[in-house]
Parts: sequence; structure tokens; C-alpha cells
Amino acid sequence: MIRKGYLLNRWTIIASERARRPTDFIVTRKKRTEKGPCPFCPGNERLTPQAVLAYLPSRRGIVRHRDSDGERATGWLIRAIPNLYPALLPSNKFEVKTHGLYTRGTATGYHEVLIESPNHDEHPGTARIDQLSLVIRGYIDRLKEFARSPVVRYVSIFRNHGREAGASLSHAHSQIIATPMVPAMIEAEVAAFRKYHKDRGRCIFCDIIRCEAKGSRLIFENEHYIAFTPWASVCPFEFWLLPKGHMACMSELTDSRDIRSLAYSLRKCFGGLRRLLNDPPYCSGFHIAPVEEESYHWHLEVYPKLSQLGGFEKSTGMFINTMSPEDAAQSLREAVKRELVSR
Amino acid sequence: MIRKGYLLNRWTIIASERARRPTDFIVTRKKRTEKGPCPFCPGNERLTPQAVLAYLPSRRGIVRHRDSDGERATGWLIRAIPNLYPALLPSNKFEVKTHGLYTRGTATGYHEVLIESPNHDEHPGTARIDQLSLVIRGYIDRLKEFARSPVVRYVSIFRNHGREAGASLSHAHSQIIATPMVPAMIEAEVAAFRKYHKDRGRCIFCDIIRCEAKGSRLIFENEHYIAFTPWASVCPFEFWLLPKGHMACMSELTDSRDIRSLAYSLRKCFGGLRRLLNDPPYCSGFHIAPVEEESYHWHLEVYPKLSQLGGFEKSTGMFINTMSPEDAAQSLREAVKRELVSR
Repeated sequence: MIRKGYLLNRWTIIASERARRPTDFIVTRKKRTEKGPCPFCPGNERLTPQAVLAYLPSRRGIVRHRDSDGERATGWLIRAIPNLYPALLPSNKFEVKTHGLYTRGTATGYHEVLIESPNHDEHPGTARIDQLSLVIRGYIDRLKEFARSPVVRYVSIFRNHGREAGASLSHAHSQIIATPMVPAMIEAEVAAFRKYHKDRGRCIFCDIIRCEAKGSRLIFENEHYIAFTPWASVCPFEFWLLPKGHMACMSELTDSRDIRSLAYSLRKCFGGLRRLLNDPPYCSGFHIAPVEEESYHWHLEVYPKLSQLGGFEKSTGMFINTMSPEDAAQSLREAVKRELVSR
Repeated sequence: MIRKGYLLNRWTIIASERARRPTDFIVTRKKRTEKGPCPFCPGNERLTPQAVLAYLPSRRGIVRHRDSDGERATGWLIRAIPNLYPALLPSNKFEVKTHGLYTRGTATGYHEVLIESPNHDEHPGTARIDQLSLVIRGYIDRLKEFARSPVVRYVSIFRNHGREAGASLSHAHSQIIATPMVPAMIEAEVAAFRKYHKDRGRCIFCDIIRCEAKGSRLIFENEHYIAFTPWASVCPFEFWLLPKGHMACMSELTDSRDIRSLAYSLRKCFGGLRRLLNDPPYCSGFHIAPVEEESYHWHLEVYPKLSQLGGFEKSTGMFINTMSPEDAAQSLREAVKRELVSR
């Protein structure tokens, strides 16, 4: 069967003729040996730039901190720093020029790393809820700061776990890239959102949630969040996590019960994934509304890296998925159920 | 700098601050050990389906052959067979149905393997021109056959080399997938082609060739073909190879001098790539006009697999390339020049 994505003209060939069990996807990976000290571990702050944000424990609770005057605060719970090798660089202006066939723009923007824990081997599938809640608060703080920048149009928060997923350092961290334009994929999703809203007067993601809540692709649900393998999953065990209440951007999350609920949902889903597939490499990324855009419903997309994209995908934009989303959901659902979560 | 692709709204961040030499991209790979006999090697034809096409040497030259009545011809020079685990399956009809948010289609089409040589370790960068010419003739034969099918709208011919590029078998082979719809990426390229043609009355690829022939991204040129690293290369050492004469689809190639010239160009470019980066894994794919479409200019795109796509690329559609196309072209150009080619 071939399936079209909910929003985009993106077709996936579901080729599950070769019936595979989840264990077929487990790859034993060499424990990585890294050269030198980990720059993200406590005590090595001098190996990195100054923190743009750190959460420090104090007697009055947790306080927000920003390094100044060459300092490097220690004792942090989470720590956000500029990437040492930034893809984009801060500037007050973004300029685009076209000469004939060549369009170039200034590499304006921000590229940061959010160190998710002092614990090197932290993972959203094993972390405590308290700690994951801080990570989410960190994301929200950075989103709010970037939304005030005159050049930032979109903020991508993503995570690469494992060398096979492109992670160059293994200490638990997310990356944040604030771009001066709305990326093509998000632009296309916003356009599809608007068209659906114009045609039916409803949010397409709210409709997706309603449909998937009943179905065979559901893997997790609580009061505030839902996770499922999408209809046209592009790879085995792809899953999405969405807030059930309509919300354009994650930065609108303010209620601390809601943030804890998201932390709990992440912990359950990533815990299930990790348990099922022996800590697989994966990429994940939040999809959120562009700055000053309302037409969206934020969510997280997770892509376990169990196979390689090849020449077909690269040259057509179509995907071949060797496991049906329904089969993937069944095993993930059971693994997620078995996860015990600690505060 | 950020750069926009020639045709699509696809932006690449060129982040070459971390100056890297070609040798920084060389990864030592374990020699792969495969279980059991190679099903693509001569003598093991019984392990595979019957050939839909084989070129057999005879006293009158090379003859086209198709296995029938359970036979498996031996002594072939190239051999095309249905994929044992096909993504798409032959059928006379293609049906698409939509129920609410869910659009599905029948998995109609063809999925074949073209075994490029009896020699297990053949590579376009080391093969003889005679052999590569047969491979190209094989592609053209299959393209012509699929163009006669009532359900095929597009044919993707691609190659995954190396396990890191998704190749599950190491014997030199290409894959051919004939799809019942025009894939999104090709559809977008055809639309961009048409718009450019409407606006300026010229083929955009012919214009690209004119511009790149003079420039710092050129890596190879002969009477009929040109190769260069594209302006908005999405990864280090990406390169494109195009026919200089306007031609919508590779299947229009008939002149044997032209075919040999393409074989020579492939041999030179892949030889240079292989020499420069110690036989790197790569994906490549032909981009051709859809069936019964004129608005295109066929070419080959090659993506060395030296880094991993991560969460940023997966969730935005933007790319980060850590090497400028100009630097990549300089080293590739020199490596290509040094390649000695034998008939």
C-alpha cells in the first residue's frame, strides 16, 4: 500500500511484505569512546562558551542565570550555550540577494546547544520528570527570547541521539537553530493547515488527534497529550506527540501541571522506544508555529534511525517504510505501557 | 552563507567555518562480511527471480535476452531482475482512495535490480567503459519498457553504494523503481522548469550548464557532458552530471558515441570521488522527465554519505553543509583529472 501524509504531498510506500519483528531492528552498537573530556559535563564549563541560560538551584527554588563578564556558572541543572561551530550567526539584519540563478542570504540566526542534565548519560526515556520539566522550561525560555529578535522567523528545536543519528557528542543535549526565514517544510505545513482550516473551519491537527485517538496507531494518551505512529510513517517506529488542546506554539505552555504532563509523556514514549529497541539512535524535532504565526498546532516528530535513506528517497522525496505503522504502534504501545516513571 | 537551490525552495546553510580538508571526511570502514553466497554473482542465478533483461555475448555481438519457462540464463554481462522484496508490485491498475484524513493507493509499479557486472566488486569509478556502456543501455531498455506500461508515470533509477548508504548487498547493482505517480520532488522540479521556461523562454538546466561551465564549481567537462558541485549542495562533495545538449529523458539517448561519452564521464567522476575519499559510501539517482512529459532536462545527482541527516534536516527541510561547494569542487576536479580510464 502507498499512503499520503496528512498534510504534505509526501507519499510513503509501506512495504511490509518482509515481515519483521521489532527485534530485527535492534543493532548492537559499539560503546563510543570519545577523545578527551566531555565539554558538556559539570566542571568543564571553561571548554564551552558562556551560558545564555542556566537553571541554578537556590534556597528560593530554581533561578534563571546568564553568564556575564567571562564567568561560567557551575552547579547548573540545565545549561544553554552558543554552539561552538554555529551554522548561523547573530546579526541585526538578514539580506537576500539574487544574481541570475544564484540566490544567497546572510547566515543570520542563532545556533545553541541545550545541555539537558549534568548527568552525561541522561536520556528522555530514563530521566526524572523533574529534570525533563526543566528541559521543557528551557526550550520555552529560549523560544520566548528568540521571538523577540527582529530577524528570527522560525525556531527549530531538535535532538540527535547516537552517532548514527548525527550526534557528535554523546552527553544528553538538544540543539536550537533560529532561522531568518520559515523553512520550506514548515511553510508547506502552514499552507496545508490554512487550506484545511479555510475548507472545513477546523484545525487539521485537532482532527488528526480525534481520528488517531481511537485507532490502531495509538501508542500513548493522557489528559493533555497523545502519541501515535502517523498514517504515512516514513520509517519504522516513527511517532508523533501532540498536545490535545489546540496550541500553535510550545512557548504558550505556561501551566506547570501541563509542562509536567508533557515531561511525563516524553518520558513514557521515549522510555518505551528505548526499551523496545535497545536504545536506538534517533532524530527528533519539534514542529512549531513560525514567529507571529497562528495557523499551526505544535508537536514533536520522532524518527528512529534504524535504516538509511537511499538514492530513491534522495531523488524522489518518496519513502519506503518496511514496517507498517500499525505493527510499529502495537509493539511501541506495549513497551510504553510497561514503563515505570519516577518523579 | 545560506543558498537557495536552482529550482526548489530548498535552502542550505553553508557552514564551512570549521575548515575541513577532504581527508577529514575519510572514514575507515570495516570490510563487510556477508552471510552465504552472493545472489548476484554468476553461478547463483537460481537464488534470484528470472531475468527480465540480460545481455548475453554471442558471435553476432551482444544480444538481449529475457528468461522464460523457469530458465536462468548464465554468462550474462548485465542482468536485470525483479527485486525479491519489491516495494511496488505489477498490476494493471492504480487506485487511490481518500477517507477523511487518510489517502491510500495501491502499491502498483515495478521494483527491479540491475546487476551491473558479473564482477562482484565492480564500481562505476573503476569499471571499463565497455561495461559501463552496457549498464547505461540496460537503463535505457528498462526505461523504454516501463514507458509502455499504462500505470507507470515515473521511473527512478538509483544506486546505493556501501552499507552506510543503505545497500543491503555489496555486489555492484542499481535499483529501478517505476511508480504510478510523479513523485513530489520531480513534480516540483517540473513545475519550476515550466515556470522558468514560461518566464524566459529557456530551459533552466541549459542555463545552469552555461553558468557552471565557467565557474569554480566545475569538476568535469567533455564534448557531451558536464559535472559540477551545485550552488546549494546539501552535503559535502554532492555533484551533478548533465548532458550538455537538451534532452528531457535519458531514454532518448540512442547514439552509441553519446552513450560511451556518458560512460566515460561517469567513470571519470566516480573514479575521482572514489580516489579522493577512499571509496566513500554514496547514493545517486537519475532525475528524468516523467512519462509523457517534455518539460525537463535529465541528469544524475550524487550524494556522498559522509555525514548523517539529523533532526534539523528532518524537521525543517533545510540542510547544513559543512563544506563549501567551491572547496569540494576544487579537490574533486583535481582527483577527476588524475583518473586514467581504460576501455
